[in-house]
Amino acid sequence: MTDQTKFLLPEDKLPKAWYNLAADLPVALPPPLHPGTGQPIGPDDLAPIFPMAVIAQEVSTERWIDIPEPVRDVYRLWRPSPLIRARRLEKALGTPARIYFKYEGVSPAGSHKPNTSVPQAFYNQQEGVKRLSTETGAGQWGSSLAFAGSLFGLEVEVFMVRISYNQKPYRRALMETYGATCIPSPSPLTAAGRAVLAKDPDSNGSLGIAISEAVEIAASRDDTKYALGSVLNHVCLHQTVIGEEALAQMEMAGATPDVVIACTGGGSNFAGLAFPYIREKLKGMNVRVVAVEPTSCPTLTKGRYAYDFGDTGHLTPLVKMHTLGSTFMPPGTHSGGLRYHGMAPMVSHVAELGLIEATAYPQTECFAAALAFARAEGIVPAPESSHAVKAAIVEAEAAKAEGKARTILFNLSGHGHFDMQSYTDYLAGKLKDPDYDQVALDRALAELPAVG
Amino acid sequence: MTDQTKFLLPEDKLPKAWYNLAADLPVALPPPLHPGTGQPIGPDDLAPIFPMAVIAQEVSTERWIDIPEPVRDVYRLWRPSPLIRARRLEKALGTPARIYFKYEGVSPAGSHKPNTSVPQAFYNQQEGVKRLSTETGAGQWGSSLAFAGSLFGLEVEVFMVRISYNQKPYRRALMETYGATCIPSPSPLTAAGRAVLAKDPDSNGSLGIAISEAVEIAASRDDTKYALGSVLNHVCLHQTVIGEEALAQMEMAGATPDVVIACTGGGSNFAGLAFPYIREKLKGMNVRVVAVEPTSCPTLTKGRYAYDFGDTGHLTPLVKMHTLGSTFMPPGTHSGGLRYHGMAPMVSHVAELGLIEATAYPQTECFAAALAFARAEGIVPAPESSHAVKAAIVEAEAAKAEGKARTILFNLSGHGHFDMQSYTDYLAGKLKDPDYDQVALDRALAELPAVG
Repeated sequence: MTDQTKFLLPEDKLPKAWYNLAADLPVALPPPLHPGTGQPIGPDDLAPIFPMAVIAQEVSTERWIDIPEPVRDVYRLWRPSPLIRARRLEKALGTPARIYFKYEGVSPAGSHKPNTSVPQAFYNQQEGVKRLSTETGAGQWGSSLAFAGSLFGLEVEVFMVRISYNQKPYRRALMETYGATCIPSPSPLTAAGRAVLAKDPDSNGSLGIAISEAVEIAASRDDTKYALGSVLNHVCLHQTVIGEEALAQMEMAGATPDVVIACTGGGSNFAGLAFPYIREKLKGMNVRVVAVEPTSCPTLTKGRYAYDFGDTGHLTPLVKMHTLGSTFMPPGTHSGGLRYHGMAPMVSHVAELGLIEATAYPQTECFAAALAFARAEGIVPAPESSHAVKAAIVEAEAAKAEGKARTILFNLSGHGHFDMQSYTDYLAGKLKDPDYDQVALDRALAELPAVG
Repeated sequence: MTDQTKFLLPEDKLPKAWYNLAADLPVALPPPLHPGTGQPIGPDDLAPIFPMAVIAQEVSTERWIDIPEPVRDVYRLWRPSPLIRARRLEKALGTPARIYFKYEGVSPAGSHKPNTSVPQAFYNQQEGVKRLSTETGAGQWGSSLAFAGSLFGLEVEVFMVRISYNQKPYRRALMETYGATCIPSPSPLTAAGRAVLAKDPDSNGSLGIAISEAVEIAASRDDTKYALGSVLNHVCLHQTVIGEEALAQMEMAGATPDVVIACTGGGSNFAGLAFPYIREKLKGMNVRVVAVEPTSCPTLTKGRYAYDFGDTGHLTPLVKMHTLGSTFMPPGTHSGGLRYHGMAPMVSHVAELGLIEATAYPQTECFAAALAFARAEGIVPAPESSHAVKAAIVEAEAAKAEGKARTILFNLSGHGHFDMQSYTDYLAGKLKDPDYDQVALDRALAELPAVG
């Protein structure tokens, strides 16, 4: 047994290809449908807003998709990311379990998001696009796309949910430091924004409205495309660089995980770590794969597996996924990145196939876990990532109760440097565990479109 | 020539000893003096506030001092830190220079400060100390000591300059997340604090007052010692892990620096990178070593080399250093870590010996450099570190003007995630370059104690 703390891959072990789980699914993924016709949509339907290379990846069933050299070149600024054994946390818990975590907070934007913002910016630049539009809630995705845009010479316009724009000025400052433009949404720049402002000039905005604005801008300008930070197949694909590295690093550590854990909002950091392990599981690896979500937005644990819209404004195709209904509004928590009514279709699909488990925890338990982690390992987790920390600690405590060793691997998807207000609130005892509104959930589920 | 971006040392190459420049100085360092007697002070004078192991290091002339295994164990959470070639910045500048930087922002607290907070916490724990007191301005040092205290089971009390306590709540949240207590200074907890509050109940505080409070607490309690984050010999010693790693990593890169650069406030991150290179220079390496300070607090470039107090309240011994006078108050800037009237005595000494150069830049030029760096390399520098970035860009542009290659190595001592307000102000055009008050400087220099 080794005494090592960090398991670092040299740059020449940076994966040369992303792994596409679609190639190995025992049952094919249900196709996205056109909301008007109920028929599967084709690449042409997506061409106004995405570059062709991205659309091709969205529908590909090739097992391996080469990572372009200019993308690997940027990845090398922070990748391969470290795999770290949490020895001090193990000791603090008094557990016989071995806890490893893959740390994605080392990226310039502080999370896993640049794994996909960088290739998306690259493919757009290759196809002559001059400008990218996107939406952001808490700002993780917006700052990641701003970073990628700065490297490939693309203008980036980020529609930021107005309440976050006002509450999180430092995420906005980060986007602007990278040269992006950050616009509070709803804005007067789009018809969608103007319509909302006409009804409510003081609207706080929502992710649904911000998506509508960003898509409208992209669809209405020849030189502009849209970029999305989670949910879609190509986003999950780009994130698999996490799991491919982790497989190699766990081998360096001489360990095979009994359980692999990540938090799920739209599903992308989970897919990134989990999909390569699901491939190994299909080939015979004895591994549990666990998705962790907040009890306040329990998409996988309480949602329905059905065709639904990806956005509140019903501009997107219908995709089959676990959903709380596109009109469902989860209560406010400090994990903005996990407050999404749906789930990546491919993550939902493997949940339906029984290849993964799902569990949910309230935010105060996750912050308590994050504090224990920070005091043992030094790194302050993002509130979203604290859900994975909580689940890892639960597994480690179960191992202790059983008196058995267990190897746990989780994804620490980002650091919490821009989320310190949530820690301030937690430490002051001000954090609550807001429950979702069951009546509203039932109503949202009753309104699911009658297709599929 | 390699195409590598990052040069990573494996954990087993983590230095086993710190390098003590005192062993190789061609002229011995002038001793600290007792302010009352004018005689050199001895270890006993320091015993009430520092543990004996630290005092021994403060006066040691041994060349190598072993890093205790429990300290190396903690270092492994983030060390060896990466050496990165700034290829994208080189390209953006169109320079033939090769620019490398050592990145200390990967530590849990986001700067080089844990390199010394961890051994200081360790030695105190070994000697049975239960609690550490310290002061902090912007919060980098306070959060680093809070982190170290959490790992070694020590209580940490941080006296934080009140204006920073109010303006920088997220640094305070970081300290509290690590379990430390953060007290706005001046406070009613100490005689020093009460005296200030009696005169001015709304005092914003100052580093000088906060030092007095932290020292008073340590001196008045048997179970409590004091910890300092810069200036002293043992702090510079602990930071040499930076330069020792850099020497090995530059060898991996197949490059020898023509110039080595770091910013200087109290001098510790500069000493950390520079002292091992000064050793090599004394052995014949052809390398320039450059200290960079703000024009608003030009200790090395405009100060006098003389015996002076380390604090405003005149509680400390007299040390020979470059100083602007202990009563000099530098104008407010966003680089709180560089606003110190003095300099590490050992840094001042090597400046007097002609072994290093010093230069100064105004903060707006440094922020412009930081923005160029962030847009090329992704990492947002701390305002303090941006002074090193600026100097590195000046060297790279000189190389371009000469049409000659030049190898530049600088220390990126920390990231700017907790300093985004300064970027917001810079981007809004609100940052100024405040000049120091020449009359006040002349007066402060005229008041230097008449010893040495």
